Amino acid sequence: MKIAALALLCCGFCWAQGDECKPSSLNIPGAPYPCVYPDRRVSFRVSAPDAQKVQVSLGGRHDMTKGADGLWTATIPPQVVGFHYYTIVVDGMVLADPATRTFFGSGWDNSGIEIPEPEADAAYYSFKDVPHGQVSQRWYFSSVTGKWRRSYVYTPPDYETNSRGRYPVLYLLHGWGENEQGWHTQGRMDLILDNLIAEKKAKPMIVVMDNLNTAKPGEDASLYSARSIIARKSLADVPPPIGAPPSAGSARGGAAPANAGRGGFGPNFGATFTEMMLADLIPMVEKTYRVLPGRENRAMAGLSMGGMQSFTTVLANMDKFAYLGGFSGSSGGRGGFDPKTSSNGVFADADAFNKKMKLVFLGIGSVEGPGTKNFSDALTAAGIHNVYFESPGTAHEWLTWRRCLNDFAPRLFK
Amino acid sequence: MKIAALALLCCGFCWAQGDECKPSSLNIPGAPYPCVYPDRRVSFRVSAPDAQKVQVSLGGRHDMTKGADGLWTATIPPQVVGFHYYTIVVDGMVLADPATRTFFGSGWDNSGIEIPEPEADAAYYSFKDVPHGQVSQRWYFSSVTGKWRRSYVYTPPDYETNSRGRYPVLYLLHGWGENEQGWHTQGRMDLILDNLIAEKKAKPMIVVMDNLNTAKPGEDASLYSARSIIARKSLADVPPPIGAPPSAGSARGGAAPANAGRGGFGPNFGATFTEMMLADLIPMVEKTYRVLPGRENRAMAGLSMGGMQSFTTVLANMDKFAYLGGFSGSSGGRGGFDPKTSSNGVFADADAFNKKMKLVFLGIGSVEGPGTKNFSDALTAAGIHNVYFESPGTAHEWLTWRRCLNDFAPRLFK
Repeated sequence: MKIAALALLCCGFCWAQGDECKPSSLNIPGAPYPCVYPDRRVSFRVSAPDAQKVQVSLGGRHDMTKGADGLWTATIPPQVVGFHYYTIVVDGMVLADPATRTFFGSGWDNSGIEIPEPEADAAYYSFKDVPHGQVSQRWYFSSVTGKWRRSYVYTPPDYETNSRGRYPVLYLLHGWGENEQGWHTQGRMDLILDNLIAEKKAKPMIVVMDNLNTAKPGEDASLYSARSIIARKSLADVPPPIGAPPSAGSARGGAAPANAGRGGFGPNFGATFTEMMLADLIPMVEKTYRVLPGRENRAMAGLSMGGMQSFTTVLANMDKFAYLGGFSGSSGGRGGFDPKTSSNGVFADADAFNKKMKLVFLGIGSVEGPGTKNFSDALTAAGIHNVYFESPGTAHEWLTWRRCLNDFAPRLFK
Repeated sequence: MKIAALALLCCGFCWAQGDECKPSSLNIPGAPYPCVYPDRRVSFRVSAPDAQKVQVSLGGRHDMTKGADGLWTATIPPQVVGFHYYTIVVDGMVLADPATRTFFGSGWDNSGIEIPEPEADAAYYSFKDVPHGQVSQRWYFSSVTGKWRRSYVYTPPDYETNSRGRYPVLYLLHGWGENEQGWHTQGRMDLILDNLIAEKKAKPMIVVMDNLNTAKPGEDASLYSARSIIARKSLADVPPPIGAPPSAGSARGGAAPANAGRGGFGPNFGATFTEMMLADLIPMVEKTYRVLPGRENRAMAGLSMGGMQSFTTVLANMDKFAYLGGFSGSSGGRGGFDPKTSSNGVFADADAFNKKMKLVFLGIGSVEGPGTKNFSDALTAAGIHNVYFESPGTAHEWLTWRRCLNDFAPRLFK
């Protein structure tokens, strides 16, 4: 009974049987569309009785067709497995599909769809009959920004029962246009950690997910949000999805680094987050939770812009962190990588660096371009130990980052 | 510095100064619309360049006007303070406004707006410089439904530090078309509890928020979701908001009880939830958290359909609960209240009932109709002790339920 139910549940993420079109696991309860065929074509259906033109935007814009019943439908070509953002465009207005739960990306609550993987591939982020941790919403006041902030904190399955246990901490950041909710909704980080911990592949750890958008009083906070510039002007266009070339209009672009040319971030963007993290976030976490002390129990990683932030923060504060990860986020900096001078010369003495840092992890989707691999090779050539991980067949998208986390977390705190 | 920032933050919920239109606190970062004037008129703006007709639906449907810049705008009459759901209608398609965060209500992720109250009135659900608890996402497997379920659990500010402390538990339910996220997003229950606990008005307690939509294997789960029936057919119309007369088309109706005539719930709806709660939810909570044992440390309450569920569950299980609350949810049952026979005769012996139940609480918005007051009067006439609370000027909406919780929680576990 329980096993059968688990198998059913798993199929929220895994390959459908037969040839019917199965509702996406991210639909609102009862909604039959969007649905995914076994060959990964996707059908959409919306009601817009008086509209002139309706499109769905996922891997490019696709015209929908109005049927005799007044409903607009489209079946689009096979999509890559994993989570994707998408939108509906009704007479020029870019919208979330009312048939799906929404997910904060590109600075607003847009639609999400999950294209199922084969069951074995999806197992690591699927529900299993293992102990589960919890993800907690934690408010705290920041002395740096002068505002209340929200963090989500994953505590491992035994945190409540092992009441004297202390745990190492991974600080884990979202990407451009996302927020502190991304990793446990789009990313399924809680299931990934639960499963790794159950298999004793990863050490039980606390994971802290904060919001990268950090502005001091007087700084223009709206610069740090994704949709804000557009929202001010017209609320019209959604900016190109993370990683897409600005002109591509595709939800699965391959540009890297992700945020090149996007602009809009103030000169102190990374510095303000680091300052806030050291002054407010880490002290709050270490005061509130049962945390193991010291740099060897502290890791930082992030995806895309959050990966760049992790490199910025950690390489400037190696006395505070011993583990570092960038998922589709690090390609050596804009000016190119120079082991003597990059990051204020922290790589200049490779032996000293290797002795100090327990892990430098570089992850990327295989269709994102060679920047991250080149960076890894350059680090290796300079004698800097690093781990390069490549997610096969995926772009700048959440399945890349789920896989990165699944490979990264077992390497921590050992 | 900190105090000034707190005052600023508070104004997310409180009266705007001056005569400008201030963005709703629920907008996406940087979005200037919707905005609220000091007299509580609200302006909306959307971009739908090729649309023929655009409306905003809040307290009735209001036509928007297309300007020379191609943007559609509308300013609607003053709204009642507090949280309201609303939608945008573009050429007949009912949508969430892309400029706001979305909130799960009526079975889908629709738009929300917060009409600020005078600061003193909003204080109890505003950020203050007090210790904050946390709200945790907790997955558990239900033997009754055969599925993984999600609960949100509030633990009070001292839960982490007072590591031997044990706490009483309030089980708190959402309403029709909502889910386990409603109370801590739309309801601000965490801030309400934090503030009450800081002022020593309420005892530190754990609050468990689960999903009322509960189906056994073989039962049609989609019957229990709000939008599903529509979604199957057309994804077109949004059902009338909770509490609105089916034909009113108003976001602020006044019908009570809320769910009369809505139908679509299976005959075992309440019974299945109760069974799941006793078999799975309470055992999970009492195994996972440091909980005080026994019925005198267990309360149950809910809003609208969740209030009706609370009466159903508690009155059939008085050996397990000593505190009961219905917020806009209880008017004595469909057949009318008879102290001798209602709820299987639990009220027949008033003295015995009063000795056993520490609290029966009935809350309602003043413009929702007399059903709840009549029920309270009938209970009183039958000698049953009860507390009647009326929220002035509010309908079947979240400000009613915030106020109910603020009045209810201090009465618990004393």
